[in-house]
Amino acid sequence: MPGNTFGKLFRITTWGESHGKGVGVVVDGCPPHIPLDESIIQPVMDQRRPGKSIASTRRREPDKAIILSGVFEGMTTGTPILIMLHNKDADSSAYKPHADIFRPGHGDITYQAKYGMRDWRGGGRASARETAARVAGGAVAKALLEREDIRVSAYTMELGGIRAKNRDGEEVGKNMFCCPDADAAGRMETRVAEVRKMGDSVGGIVEILASGVPQGLGDPVFDKLDAELAKALMSIGAVKGVEIGAGFEAAGMRGSENNDPITPEGFATNHAGGILAGISNGDEIVMRVGVKPIPSIAIEQQTIDRLGNPATISTKGRHDVSAIPRINGICEAMVCLVLADHLLRQRAIS
Amino acid sequence: MPGNTFGKLFRITTWGESHGKGVGVVVDGCPPHIPLDESIIQPVMDQRRPGKSIASTRRREPDKAIILSGVFEGMTTGTPILIMLHNKDADSSAYKPHADIFRPGHGDITYQAKYGMRDWRGGGRASARETAARVAGGAVAKALLEREDIRVSAYTMELGGIRAKNRDGEEVGKNMFCCPDADAAGRMETRVAEVRKMGDSVGGIVEILASGVPQGLGDPVFDKLDAELAKALMSIGAVKGVEIGAGFEAAGMRGSENNDPITPEGFATNHAGGILAGISNGDEIVMRVGVKPIPSIAIEQQTIDRLGNPATISTKGRHDVSAIPRINGICEAMVCLVLADHLLRQRAIS
Amino acid sequence: MPGNTFGKLFRITTWGESHGKGVGVVVDGCPPHIPLDESIIQPVMDQRRPGKSIASTRRREPDKAIILSGVFEGMTTGTPILIMLHNKDADSSAYKPHADIFRPGHGDITYQAKYGMRDWRGGGRASARETAARVAGGAVAKALLEREDIRVSAYTMELGGIRAKNRDGEEVGKNMFCCPDADAAGRMETRVAEVRKMGDSVGGIVEILASGVPQGLGDPVFDKLDAELAKALMSIGAVKGVEIGAGFEAAGMRGSENNDPITPEGFATNHAGGILAGISNGDEIVMRVGVKPIPSIAIEQQTIDRLGNPATISTKGRHDVSAIPRINGICEAMVCLVLADHLLRQRAIS
Amino acid sequence: MPGNTFGKLFRITTWGESHGKGVGVVVDGCPPHIPLDESIIQPVMDQRRPGKSIASTRRREPDKAIILSGVFEGMTTGTPILIMLHNKDADSSAYKPHADIFRPGHGDITYQAKYGMRDWRGGGRASARETAARVAGGAVAKALLEREDIRVSAYTMELGGIRAKNRDGEEVGKNMFCCPDADAAGRMETRVAEVRKMGDSVGGIVEILASGVPQGLGDPVFDKLDAELAKALMSIGAVKGVEIGAGFEAAGMRGSENNDPITPEGFATNHAGGILAGISNGDEIVMRVGVKPIPSIAIEQQTIDRLGNPATISTKGRHDVSAIPRINGICEAMVCLVLADHLLRQRAIS
Repeated sequence: MPGNTFGKLFRITTWGESHGKGVGVVVDGCPPHIPLDESIIQPVMDQRRPGKSIASTRRREPDKAIILSGVFEGMTTGTPILIMLHNKDADSSAYKPHADIFRPGHGDITYQAKYGMRDWRGGGRASARETAARVAGGAVAKALLEREDIRVSAYTMELGGIRAKNRDGEEVGKNMFCCPDADAAGRMETRVAEVRKMGDSVGGIVEILASGVPQGLGDPVFDKLDAELAKALMSIGAVKGVEIGAGFEAAGMRGSENNDPITPEGFATNHAGGILAGISNGDEIVMRVGVKPIPSIAIEQQTIDRLGNPATISTKGRHDVSAIPRINGICEAMVCLVLADHLLRQRAIS
Repeated sequence: MPGNTFGKLFRITTWGESHGKGVGVVVDGCPPHIPLDESIIQPVMDQRRPGKSIASTRRREPDKAIILSGVFEGMTTGTPILIMLHNKDADSSAYKPHADIFRPGHGDITYQAKYGMRDWRGGGRASARETAARVAGGAVAKALLEREDIRVSAYTMELGGIRAKNRDGEEVGKNMFCCPDADAAGRMETRVAEVRKMGDSVGGIVEILASGVPQGLGDPVFDKLDAELAKALMSIGAVKGVEIGAGFEAAGMRGSENNDPITPEGFATNHAGGILAGISNGDEIVMRVGVKPIPSIAIEQQTIDRLGNPATISTKGRHDVSAIPRINGICEAMVCLVLADHLLRQRAIS
Repeated sequence: MPGNTFGKLFRITTWGESHGKGVGVVVDGCPPHIPLDESIIQPVMDQRRPGKSIASTRRREPDKAIILSGVFEGMTTGTPILIMLHNKDADSSAYKPHADIFRPGHGDITYQAKYGMRDWRGGGRASARETAARVAGGAVAKALLEREDIRVSAYTMELGGIRAKNRDGEEVGKNMFCCPDADAAGRMETRVAEVRKMGDSVGGIVEILASGVPQGLGDPVFDKLDAELAKALMSIGAVKGVEIGAGFEAAGMRGSENNDPITPEGFATNHAGGILAGISNGDEIVMRVGVKPIPSIAIEQQTIDRLGNPATISTKGRHDVSAIPRINGICEAMVCLVLADHLLRQRAIS
Repeated sequence: MPGNTFGKLFRITTWGESHGKGVGVVVDGCPPHIPLDESIIQPVMDQRRPGKSIASTRRREPDKAIILSGVFEGMTTGTPILIMLHNKDADSSAYKPHADIFRPGHGDITYQAKYGMRDWRGGGRASARETAARVAGGAVAKALLEREDIRVSAYTMELGGIRAKNRDGEEVGKNMFCCPDADAAGRMETRVAEVRKMGDSVGGIVEILASGVPQGLGDPVFDKLDAELAKALMSIGAVKGVEIGAGFEAAGMRGSENNDPITPEGFATNHAGGILAGISNGDEIVMRVGVKPIPSIAIEQQTIDRLGNPATISTKGRHDVSAIPRINGICEAMVCLVLADHLLRQRAIS
């Protein structure tokens, strides 16, 4: 059944394949009177653009966002907003030889099983190219949230086994890995260069912060804010784990350690990560995702073809060594979408 | 907005508070001709019943499931199934003195912020009592899945910092912590007794396995099977982290290590945890959740009252030392609900 | 797939069969702080109760509404409200002889086709008994609307071919057919008595008015207010036609006749029925439904049994001669549900 | 909240304004392996194209449908299908003088009330131009239904007060009004010419037939097939009434007349219009809609401007004299969408 729509009140529907004519998003439910035009969306798109980091692919999509509806005289009108991103630099020739071979770690085998066919060009719908549409939709959500002084930011806490030791917000924009620790960023650079030479890839951990989120967002018992965030983040292809606040570390703590004492000035600690019983508590919302290494690697791998015969594959296409830091902007987009949706949801009962 | 419905085709809606007249679930979308009566639901309910483990509360609810609709002559009819669980052993008197005090780590403060009021008796809707309705709904999903030979099981991998070293399925039913490692189970018992004496509580990690899941379940790009499972599991109150397959460990692996080679006989490894690109690959689905320690502890904690004045609280009510192992059955229920839903979703396009 | 949930933000889910243990409704999404208890719901239930009109069945259900959740200290809490109606006076014996015979005009044959089975007792889920749960849910919506001074009322414009000539609101409560025309009501009484003697049944037309509806409700282009009302009303078993404002009469008018001139004081006429382009225009919303005659009649009818063999049937059970006026309260309930939903929907973007 | 999505399993989301860059539709949930390309969609689009009838506008949009995603090698892939229709012949200059004046019978006043602003160019989102996207989406549904031998057709039963006396399917394609009665069609032509000269417009009645629909479609109790059809049809701008089978005429019949006797060969009559208790009974589904006259007329009308001052308006733009017969294809599209959705819905439980 349809799985390409996300959100209830602030809702996006995305479409498009890696090597088709383009990808895009319909944003439905955005309130009117939000200032919006391409100049607001484009900077958000540019942040995720490949080619900004040595960890990233060499495919160069200008990712020029074009608004085709829903905006009039520089403002949203309350009607659906279509944002189009044409595919320009899609070269399917590299995929042709492997059209019938299932790439390990990719959705080739499962798309074939589910649909009985697949668009093999560049991974088709399962390509990371799909996420450009989410980022475009997320940019609209971001514009809505900024009017409420809600800010979402993602940064790299770990890459290729190298972990950031501190969280210096200023530093994030200064290095190519969006890492809040200058020293770690330097070692990440070395690590990524090594791995690239090996024809291999690496994973890592991204932390996402949402600040300025008012108390009261989230709808128990199934649409809890943390449940919705978990779905949003886990729906990103490379993500294999999601945690909120202390996350898995909380599993090893005692109640007296993990509980956040409440004072007249606010919470003394934030192990909860800004969410209690599925509802935002006014504190910063803290999330982390575990990102698997890019499955497309130059190293030869064992696999099968569509008929079940053994085969080997070595991916020589234009691919990233890591989904990080490109994935950071996608995480931000998904979190923005959840928060915009729940902001509107909460208005309905207030 | 409404947040008490879960699932699209196989769908539950739950209701009820800890100290109200009862809790219950409407199961809508269950296909007809599934054998069902109370004798099928009750054993699933009994598994989660408090009082089976020394980690569990002393509140004794018989949790007698009563089917009020949707079943005729021992079979589901395709119409909505209402399962009712009366509250029998609800004693609000212990909560009265703290009606205006926000318990740390609980939803008291966020429910108050969201709704401007709250049913303070036993945590109201935010109580773990709510989950009994999920388990009842999950029992119907389980009955549906069993006809397709899909089995879901949860067991305790870590409790109070003690980690299971091996996964002996036989062992799970033999110890009170549902731990697949007899030795670890013994040490868990000691640990829980210690912590209880300290008036404190512990968290842990539960692993859930789904076997027999056919290829092809999950709807890209937002309703991916892992995204839906993440939401389902994170919607359980005490869960702070969810991972699939290698999960956060994948973040530290290289592509060549993490990718599961494909052979004519199937996948050589299962780091993916049975899901590729959001679609089940036919392998076992492996999930883990990080469970925070129970926030209600006897140790005195710092907090505020409804008016913002400083206060202290020491919870003397009947509470578990850990949500584990009671939470295990709730995890199973949520996974069953997701799988039943996606089983039906996949039929629609097949 | 699930079809027993109605509404997006103010949402009901109903369950229960005619001769099962009861019927009921979960209301999810109702804002907190709405005064509610059984004394508010019961009068609305009593209005629809059979046995108030000579057109109505002799089955006497007390229809005592019991709230099991979602209300605390006389106020809604924002959590789901379960309202239970036990079946007391259900006698299946009259249905037993016809368990395998498809009653013409009923859902027996289609339920069998759809589900491959059916609960034949009293029509099972297809019974008008189901609508009691809608009325209970509608009573909650009504309580919400009344705080905004929105009022919904239904009255009988035609019964057994006899048409009301005028609309005297005062008169509606004075006659047993809820007809706004005393003279017509008298003739309806005669007509119904005749038809009852013939062992036959009659249909009619109900008009529903909603006043005090603010401008701006309704969500183009598919969830237009009139589209949602049409669905709501057509989902009532006996309804075969729905019209808004001038309705089918508009088909015979010219634009210059049908257009409502706009003046600084408001619309000069109301052919639109209070809705323009799917959005409420602040004027009274006017709807009419065509109600088919009750299909259960004493006159012998030609049919088949479950195996396809010819059969005859003459329904001797306790049945109404007309769904009117009992259906009037159901129409009111459905309209209240749509308006409550859209009231909340509009708040989200305001 | 979002109102631009229709359907649950076979789902469309539309976007676009009359005088923006284009309109379009995302079709999500279409099963894979359905042959599809522009050559299948274009003929369906061409049928609705303005300029084919003397009742129609002189605006000439080529309405060239372009598929941007979801199709690979001439087949649907199971991923979302974007169909784009560029606006070519949009001339806003005629609307400029009336940018601040509310046209009677249009959504100008209600869009302004709802959103606090509006795109006044050509009616913006409220324009009939929006329906082109529905027709494109409906063409995909049609392709799906044809594989199951389900056919949907609409024809004109009444126009400008002239009623078709017989239903000659062959005749429908032969006259410019799609009327199944050659004689009536001739008189309609005269009538339309007269009314055009008067600067006025007319309404009418369209009947829609769906044949080959299997038994069992429709989901009680709220998503009944007739309820969903009523919503679908009433969501078309000009429709003010919807009826199924005997419709409002059933209101005047007795049960013994209205009930369709069942024989071993099928139903003896079809007053039910192919639907019993909200589920298709295998017979032809018969629907009728009442279409209001086009509100844009040359005759001067009384209205107000955005500030509430009295004003007059005479619409000189390029407009139809009647929404019929262009609306016929839109009715077909909406019915196809409902049937495709319910076909998939029924598979899920079978």
